[in-house]
Amino acid sequence: MFRLHGQLEKDAVPVCDLPLSSVLLFNDARFPWLILVPRIEGARELYSLDGDERVTLMEEIALASGVLQRTFEPYKLNVGALGNIVEQLHVHVIGRFKHDAAWPGPVWGFQGRQPYPPDALSGRLKTLQDAFEKDGRIR
Amino acid sequence: MFRLHGQLEKDAVPVCDLPLSSVLLFNDARFPWLILVPRIEGARELYSLDGDERVTLMEEIALASGVLQRTFEPYKLNVGALGNIVEQLHVHVIGRFKHDAAWPGPVWGFQGRQPYPPDALSGRLKTLQDAFEKDGRIR
Repeated sequence: MFRLHGQLEKDAVPVCDLPLSSVLLFNDARFPWLILVPRIEGARELYSLDGDERVTLMEEIALASGVLQRTFEPYKLNVGALGNIVEQLHVHVIGRFKHDAAWPGPVWGFQGRQPYPPDALSGRLKTLQDAFEKDGRIR
Repeated sequence: MFRLHGQLEKDAVPVCDLPLSSVLLFNDARFPWLILVPRIEGARELYSLDGDERVTLMEEIALASGVLQRTFEPYKLNVGALGNIVEQLHVHVIGRFKHDAAWPGPVWGFQGRQPYPPDALSGRLKTLQDAFEKDGRIR
């Protein structure tokens, strides 16, 4: 039985489910920041997925990347699977701007987290859900 | 014509070529740190690769991950494609330990870089080349 890690449940909100991964929006208004969590109990490293799962995950990373790029037009995307703190396998896909708070450094470990105001959060979720749906991939 | 970015040429040394990517060892003795650079002129983002290239890159990430895991037995792997500073598409695959200098933070942006002493560098390269060759994937 797959269960989302408590820390991800606390820091992020669900956007939609793709065939392999649940897509979350990291609740930090400073960055457009998605997290893909493959729904595989006990998964910890990319390389321990089987070949088909890895291919699907890569396609879902590309899909999420395209959604962020078209929706927010960031200067650069950052993609990362770290897991030093939350070991449940998850992949960050983040839109970066030259004027963002952490540029050009990484966002991971960057101090603080600024949650969206409630209205802004629901607006952003709707925008993202529409963008994923437009790509015809929501189950 | 593909040409490796000057900054990668300066900070890393070649290990071997895989079908899509050149594998480099980042010259920082504090972390076992590989960089995969797909030999595609102008590539900047994962999602802009075509589907076959993405699949191959994912397999090469898994291969490099397995080599690091078996060779150095890190506690965790970190995989990331950032490119905020060096825009040429490249993927970091890094072995992390609970006792390493940056733990549990990310290695990117972590101060300094401690090049290997020359003998240690050639020893490490040989170890890695043997490990990739054992997997039968060197061209």
